[in-house]
Amino acid sequence: MAGNSFGQIFKITTFGESHGEAIGVIIDGCPSNIEIDLDFIQNELDKRKPGQSKITTQRKESDTFQILSGIFEGKTTGTPIAIIIPNEDQKSKDYDHNKDTFRPSHADYTYQVKYGIRDHRGGGRSSARETAARVAAGAIAKLFLKQKGIDVLAHVSSVGNLDSPEIDFTSAEEFVTLRENNIVRCADAKTAEQMIELIDGIRKEGDTIGGKITCYIKNCPVGLGEPVFDKLHADLGKAMLSINAVHGFDYGSGFDGSTMRGSQHNDAFQSSESGKISTKTNFSGGVQGGISNGMDINMRIAFKPVATIMSNQNTVNKSGEAAEIKGKGRHDPCVVPRAVAIVEAMAALVIVDHYLRNQLYK
Amino acid sequence: MAGNSFGQIFKITTFGESHGEAIGVIIDGCPSNIEIDLDFIQNELDKRKPGQSKITTQRKESDTFQILSGIFEGKTTGTPIAIIIPNEDQKSKDYDHNKDTFRPSHADYTYQVKYGIRDHRGGGRSSARETAARVAAGAIAKLFLKQKGIDVLAHVSSVGNLDSPEIDFTSAEEFVTLRENNIVRCADAKTAEQMIELIDGIRKEGDTIGGKITCYIKNCPVGLGEPVFDKLHADLGKAMLSINAVHGFDYGSGFDGSTMRGSQHNDAFQSSESGKISTKTNFSGGVQGGISNGMDINMRIAFKPVATIMSNQNTVNKSGEAAEIKGKGRHDPCVVPRAVAIVEAMAALVIVDHYLRNQLYK
Amino acid sequence: MAGNSFGQIFKITTFGESHGEAIGVIIDGCPSNIEIDLDFIQNELDKRKPGQSKITTQRKESDTFQILSGIFEGKTTGTPIAIIIPNEDQKSKDYDHNKDTFRPSHADYTYQVKYGIRDHRGGGRSSARETAARVAAGAIAKLFLKQKGIDVLAHVSSVGNLDSPEIDFTSAEEFVTLRENNIVRCADAKTAEQMIELIDGIRKEGDTIGGKITCYIKNCPVGLGEPVFDKLHADLGKAMLSINAVHGFDYGSGFDGSTMRGSQHNDAFQSSESGKISTKTNFSGGVQGGISNGMDINMRIAFKPVATIMSNQNTVNKSGEAAEIKGKGRHDPCVVPRAVAIVEAMAALVIVDHYLRNQLYK
Amino acid sequence: MAGNSFGQIFKITTFGESHGEAIGVIIDGCPSNIEIDLDFIQNELDKRKPGQSKITTQRKESDTFQILSGIFEGKTTGTPIAIIIPNEDQKSKDYDHNKDTFRPSHADYTYQVKYGIRDHRGGGRSSARETAARVAAGAIAKLFLKQKGIDVLAHVSSVGNLDSPEIDFTSAEEFVTLRENNIVRCADAKTAEQMIELIDGIRKEGDTIGGKITCYIKNCPVGLGEPVFDKLHADLGKAMLSINAVHGFDYGSGFDGSTMRGSQHNDAFQSSESGKISTKTNFSGGVQGGISNGMDINMRIAFKPVATIMSNQNTVNKSGEAAEIKGKGRHDPCVVPRAVAIVEAMAALVIVDHYLRNQLYK
Repeated sequence: MAGNSFGQIFKITTFGESHGEAIGVIIDGCPSNIEIDLDFIQNELDKRKPGQSKITTQRKESDTFQILSGIFEGKTTGTPIAIIIPNEDQKSKDYDHNKDTFRPSHADYTYQVKYGIRDHRGGGRSSARETAARVAAGAIAKLFLKQKGIDVLAHVSSVGNLDSPEIDFTSAEEFVTLRENNIVRCADAKTAEQMIELIDGIRKEGDTIGGKITCYIKNCPVGLGEPVFDKLHADLGKAMLSINAVHGFDYGSGFDGSTMRGSQHNDAFQSSESGKISTKTNFSGGVQGGISNGMDINMRIAFKPVATIMSNQNTVNKSGEAAEIKGKGRHDPCVVPRAVAIVEAMAALVIVDHYLRNQLYK
Repeated sequence: MAGNSFGQIFKITTFGESHGEAIGVIIDGCPSNIEIDLDFIQNELDKRKPGQSKITTQRKESDTFQILSGIFEGKTTGTPIAIIIPNEDQKSKDYDHNKDTFRPSHADYTYQVKYGIRDHRGGGRSSARETAARVAAGAIAKLFLKQKGIDVLAHVSSVGNLDSPEIDFTSAEEFVTLRENNIVRCADAKTAEQMIELIDGIRKEGDTIGGKITCYIKNCPVGLGEPVFDKLHADLGKAMLSINAVHGFDYGSGFDGSTMRGSQHNDAFQSSESGKISTKTNFSGGVQGGISNGMDINMRIAFKPVATIMSNQNTVNKSGEAAEIKGKGRHDPCVVPRAVAIVEAMAALVIVDHYLRNQLYK
Repeated sequence: MAGNSFGQIFKITTFGESHGEAIGVIIDGCPSNIEIDLDFIQNELDKRKPGQSKITTQRKESDTFQILSGIFEGKTTGTPIAIIIPNEDQKSKDYDHNKDTFRPSHADYTYQVKYGIRDHRGGGRSSARETAARVAAGAIAKLFLKQKGIDVLAHVSSVGNLDSPEIDFTSAEEFVTLRENNIVRCADAKTAEQMIELIDGIRKEGDTIGGKITCYIKNCPVGLGEPVFDKLHADLGKAMLSINAVHGFDYGSGFDGSTMRGSQHNDAFQSSESGKISTKTNFSGGVQGGISNGMDINMRIAFKPVATIMSNQNTVNKSGEAAEIKGKGRHDPCVVPRAVAIVEAMAALVIVDHYLRNQLYK
Repeated sequence: MAGNSFGQIFKITTFGESHGEAIGVIIDGCPSNIEIDLDFIQNELDKRKPGQSKITTQRKESDTFQILSGIFEGKTTGTPIAIIIPNEDQKSKDYDHNKDTFRPSHADYTYQVKYGIRDHRGGGRSSARETAARVAAGAIAKLFLKQKGIDVLAHVSSVGNLDSPEIDFTSAEEFVTLRENNIVRCADAKTAEQMIELIDGIRKEGDTIGGKITCYIKNCPVGLGEPVFDKLHADLGKAMLSINAVHGFDYGSGFDGSTMRGSQHNDAFQSSESGKISTKTNFSGGVQGGISNGMDINMRIAFKPVATIMSNQNTVNKSGEAAEIKGKGRHDPCVVPRAVAIVEAMAALVIVDHYLRNQLYK
């Protein structure tokens, strides 16, 4: 009810503030007997952690996790899995400037009004640091999906006005290799180079820039998603829109589909010799009537530019008086390279949840 | 869990198939002592009902509702409000063609696989007829919001490649008058004329076309929305993506925001002489950190073209054999004029729900 | 959230007031392809309906139900099942006396304070008439359980100080035959006779009396119930305590178990030649650690005497002034004979819900 | 869904196994600006901790808690409160005997079947150690209730066949003083002495015994509880039945009420000179129609004897073969003295949750 939980069956609850003792997550509803690969989880966290390259914030956190419960002899037991990630690099003093003053396009003002109190240090609960907990939970969701042969794959498809071409790939491994070949996490090497140059320039100016991530679900079985309100793409949309800085979501033909005609857009069914049903085109984006149809699911997620910039900005303070504020601390010039891990985590959480729900009503 | 409910506090559950006895909705959690204006509810339903103009389906349903419970002497009592809308114009035979054959880009195939059974008549549960129940519930949500002075306003902002300019309006009444002046429900008269011509031509070809709706929330108090997962815009996004045929959602700077720089995008705070805090620009779209900041909320919703077209299409049948199907029945050439009422209903439901939630934790 | 829903997976929401248009229930989450026997549902409703014998209220309602959705060609489709039961015998004038005056030990006062408004006619939403909707939903739950071979069986085990001996029975059919042989629904014929005499005498005095119902679940598989908070017996307890007039619940050794020693109370495990594990005694009542262990589940539910009596009582009115009130209308001298159907319905709903939940986490 | 959460608005999720790293709880939905008294929380935990007297288990755990999030400068911020309690005295080897063998009347067998895996050490997740997390959360609930002047008070009212007389007390402080005067936590000094003697004798025999706890809510406002399924007493019942070893719950007239007549049982309303409405008697136990009526709420909770006894017992092993098991480790001869803190915690959690819910619908 207070907004810190996600999922119905495979349910996560995250907790923790940017500069508190620790952040963490409880996963309640993970099936038993899933093998837990600790290195895999750490690897996922490392993709999101700060300080990993010159185009991310230089803040340092090892983001080392501890599992407190739910695992016995390397396997899940069906009981809640509690994971904590202690906070390390807490330069709280860096944030004295926003104790009484509201940073533009941050959540300082809205939290203050909503709760009448806020932990201002590093944005407190509104900090994107919270998403590390999602990545940890998402890693466990991915371990579940691996068993089922389902792949969740995302990469940076745009930075500013630089757009990647469609990626041609034949396996999940190939896609990940292409993407991890560069620090911006775009699977097209040439675009990646341009993106890095763009971000690096913007960083030097003390400015920031937005971007887009494209995410695919491959080998998703038919039947995931519930009719009416909990359509698969609606839950994916909510998941993505809940990530800090996301301002838009579309799937399949998306916004472009609104300019098309039915005669172009309809995906004709066909069946292979083995009897497998598929569609000739995939404007539906792998989802029809809110339920997966076995084709690849694809979606795009738009991120606004990071709000913390290194220049003077006009604002007001808690008393409503005019004030000036300047970005301090260590921040990202562009959030999308680190957000790839978050997008994959959220997609994995949605797919696992609907995978389990789909066992129920037949 | 089965996907037929929406909302946490002001919770609706819809039921009913296109060609069953009735469709309807239960609203559980409506505060007591709200005055219920029956004419207002019918008027909302009339905006969505079929057969209202030459550019909508010619199917006829009066969509007359009955309230079975929850109202006493014209006011809500705090107990569940049950509303039913009997189905009238059920030409079930029109649908014999899709009993065993899957219509392209409809939900026939996915429902069949998911449940192993389906009511094929008119799409059964997957029919957009279900949205009439949402509109009835949304009307009651709007009556609640009216008491609080909050306006929910939507119009058709695009059909195909025809885009409306931004609408300049000073009151909700003015906006609604502009919009209801034409049958396509675009508040810009000149664009509306072009849209009607476009849709009418497409209708004559037996084809369909997509479009976009823009929705505003005006006079929304500060503080609505919950941190982390239940961000206000994430719940709005899910609400909109749950509407039949929606393929995309963005808010504030939206997809365009992903191409901007932080120095352009940040919304500087300012305070009026009376001490009211606002922002100079509104790229945040009225929501910061997932919580409303008192500025106008705005969002755009993209609809794909209607899947039922009046020409032969290739598909497969239940046995996986190749088949041909032709659209029969009476269908909409473009769904957005009727969907304005649905978008407003879903937005109203989200705002009421978060309005009530915001009373809880302070 | 407003208290009108029950269950997590097989979720029901009831609606309706005693003297409104209709009462009813939505079942959301019923698996598809369950055959629906309409006569069976009516038969369950008939066991609860008023006017069925001299020891129940003489109010007449046929309690005929209509199914509005969710069934296609005699089977469930996985979509919401909406059932309504129109109200017929609405002598609302009978209730003018409690418009402004609070009936002792009824919900008039608490509803008035909670909501600031109430439908006083026949108790409105607080009337036990609401339980007819539960019985209809419970009938569908029973049809599901029948497929699985699970029996839910209840009878009247006490009226006042008259207690039935333990019932010896070998089949569900035998138990139901014994119980339905008499109008008080006690499976022991001799006790039944005494109970009927007792109730009839109390009825003539214009008074009422309490009683107890014992309920068994037979052939319940091992594994139903979730650890910690949603223990099977905890959900059964909540289900029973939610029935009007219930003041107590225990299971297995129950209240008597609190006087026993561990050495007496522990249920030793044993295994049959075929390898089936059971326990020698069953003080655990079929549930260990909140999870069914395959033994018979048993529980007892205590009902207070009906609050409406045919004599003058002191009370206060809405203004807090002293007033006198006299029971009018047509009421039950003892609620347990009609409540057997409600207890079975609630037990069936809990078992189905946990049956479905138990498919999830392994 | 997996059973580890409780509450709708003030929602707790507990995690952790008896012999894992730590147990703990997330409280999601605690209102902001509640002052947190750390000593008070520790004091509540100390009442439940093992090793506190000769009649409890001699196992030693300091049960020292850490708060990881949700508190800023001594006050709640409205964000999730994470509390962990590290496990200290983990003599896991003590539990080798139940790795493959099922302890009678424990959850070993049911967990093994349900999940296909279990952490056998000390009962793992099924251990009553989990309740320490509830007590920590309950302490914060109590701090909230204190601000509202609501008292939650429990004591041991029976051990075996020894029953305490009704306690006469005029203030919460007096009650707590009477209760904490003795190690069995019965507020009647004379009965307490007999109870201690009884338990001590049973302990020496290596046996265990059951008991009962009575709990009161004083100064509860009118209006708490939701109609139909979430009646206040139904949620209290579920809360209590979810505590390890509880086999029965009743409130108000309870099981005895089932033997009474309506003319005895009805609680006549009266109003004081100041206009305050109350009832002359309180057979309703402070709840009418599921909603609090402002009178004292009272309830009784029955605990079975602890299953671990110090003698040989017959059982079976994982292969279904006959086996013998002997209680080892350090266990409680009677659970009720330590369970008083758990009962109060659960009652406080229910009351806070319904207090917050009651703000919603009017």
